[in-house]
Amino acid sequence: MRRPRLAPTFRQQDPRLRRRGLAIGIDIGGTKVAAGVVDAEGRVLRRARRATPGTRPREVERVIAELVEELSAHHRITSVGIGAAGWMDLDGGTVLFSPHLAWRNEPLRENLEKLLRRRIYLSNDADAAAWAEWRFGAGKHESRLVCITLGTGIGGAMVMSGRLERGRYGVAGEFGHQIIMPGGHRCECGNRGCWEQYASGNALGREARELARANSPVAQELLRAVDRDPERITGAIVTELAREGDAASQELLEDVGEWLGLGLANLAAALDPGTFVIGGGLCDAGELLLAPARRAFARNLTGRGFRPPARIVRADLGPEAGLIGAADLSRVHLRSRGWAH
Amino acid sequence: MRRPRLAPTFRQQDPRLRRRGLAIGIDIGGTKVAAGVVDAEGRVLRRARRATPGTRPREVERVIAELVEELSAHHRITSVGIGAAGWMDLDGGTVLFSPHLAWRNEPLRENLEKLLRRRIYLSNDADAAAWAEWRFGAGKHESRLVCITLGTGIGGAMVMSGRLERGRYGVAGEFGHQIIMPGGHRCECGNRGCWEQYASGNALGREARELARANSPVAQELLRAVDRDPERITGAIVTELAREGDAASQELLEDVGEWLGLGLANLAAALDPGTFVIGGGLCDAGELLLAPARRAFARNLTGRGFRPPARIVRADLGPEAGLIGAADLSRVHLRSRGWAH
Repeated sequence: MRRPRLAPTFRQQDPRLRRRGLAIGIDIGGTKVAAGVVDAEGRVLRRARRATPGTRPREVERVIAELVEELSAHHRITSVGIGAAGWMDLDGGTVLFSPHLAWRNEPLRENLEKLLRRRIYLSNDADAAAWAEWRFGAGKHESRLVCITLGTGIGGAMVMSGRLERGRYGVAGEFGHQIIMPGGHRCECGNRGCWEQYASGNALGREARELARANSPVAQELLRAVDRDPERITGAIVTELAREGDAASQELLEDVGEWLGLGLANLAAALDPGTFVIGGGLCDAGELLLAPARRAFARNLTGRGFRPPARIVRADLGPEAGLIGAADLSRVHLRSRGWAH
Repeated sequence: MRRPRLAPTFRQQDPRLRRRGLAIGIDIGGTKVAAGVVDAEGRVLRRARRATPGTRPREVERVIAELVEELSAHHRITSVGIGAAGWMDLDGGTVLFSPHLAWRNEPLRENLEKLLRRRIYLSNDADAAAWAEWRFGAGKHESRLVCITLGTGIGGAMVMSGRLERGRYGVAGEFGHQIIMPGGHRCECGNRGCWEQYASGNALGREARELARANSPVAQELLRAVDRDPERITGAIVTELAREGDAASQELLEDVGEWLGLGLANLAAALDPGTFVIGGGLCDAGELLLAPARRAFARNLTGRGFRPPARIVRADLGPEAGLIGAADLSRVHLRSRGWAH
């Protein structure tokens, strides 16, 4: 891929400043684009955000450019890292495929480097979050880390021996699409029975709606919360009710937690990590989700009793993990590609 | 762990000879112990074998010592590598657990180094086979290799970026114990629904016996082959009949192949390897097994159409992969632990 000419500021900076310098991280979500200036210790020094402007590549690029301009007015920035749902090529230059955005083999880095005259690094949002948790969060010092982000689906990533393990073509970590129930629920990926159809915010909402539609006596709190319209029930509502003590909502979270634990046991069989870090919105349920997950993990771990089990801990960095990781990855890759020399 | 004193021959050898030197590989199976002198290009220069002498550690150690003595009479040996079913610690010194042998936290390396006055390295048999295929066989030059050994169960191992990925505690690669059918067939590991209960030699035998017991018209060839005693049917018999053209046996292999392909698609979702190498006895079925596996893989791969799919190839080295890999791993670790300096 052709490398665009760089703004002269790049080469003129003090090398130490560049090495320890600041990076901008941008997390492109389905509804909002969150950005921040991140230092070498993972602290967010300044923040900015915009609504996600539809799905057209040019519009998203424009918003990214605005955010970078806004944030770099106050700081000397060495690189920009962008995290988004989707598959990036191994080089961090091209979006192969993004489920929510209209990017198909989009040379996003090249476009943005031309537009911004800055170094750009693209990463998958789950990879970025895992990297942040390993560098600065709940996965620090872990030699074999598996990160699970529980949102509408399941995001996954691995940091092995201090390196993001992204597979041969950069698309590893799609744990949510391991089939654990052949012939089971239909998944957006086109298969049936994927793990994320059983252990995610979407799964929680679907199960709750089904319970509410049956108008069971146990579902009355749920129905009250949505003016008796089952179709309005979401995972977030179930989580809220569960935290307020609704027994049915707690049972629904327990079911999802058990599927979570079963899938983690499967990952432990394959990968034997020292730590699982669990993040994402569904984690707001806290121990209502994680306690049953730990029980199911312990019950389903192959070889239990003959091996040290992995720790299962909650993510530290919350919703900013993605932008922190994207920023730090851009800094790391800026170094490894020799730009800092 | 205490390091035993070494025979002086170790330090007196010419460094180049040691680096390129010969290693003995020993593969401890349930019925036989196979050994060989292996050179730095993975060639087996001399072979020896014994029946597996029961399960007691001392007896197995005695047989290993005999084999090493026999083989080293003719060659100058720099190290001895041992592969066995079971979990070895990360250091290659202790057998944590072995399903077929009575080893529990057995300091096998220390015992053997004392007995043999030679450097020993222990490895899991599936890891050893994968290493051999990556170094000398069907997985050469692959940056992300997943190896599957289909025997009575499923052995698994990964070579990532030129390194055996063994996990945090050395027990990664137990792909066969990923649960793909919750509540399904009981597995020897204590769980239900493990992949190896659907895609292995044991699974093939079990399905064939069930078919034969029902005395279905399609099962008559199978029944003839075992004097109408369904309990005598094994996976090997089914494979043989399938190769001779028996339609029912071919269907049984096709079913197992489909489960194989589904599990490979799950592994591709998680690990995104460039190549799957499939070895083990069940591979004698060749394309009768692998063709349906490839079809099921292509049908179940998440993101199909938006990603390069992994190759699925047959192992090159046959039943000697384990001893070749064990030998080579002992050579590599002898170097990395600084013994060659």
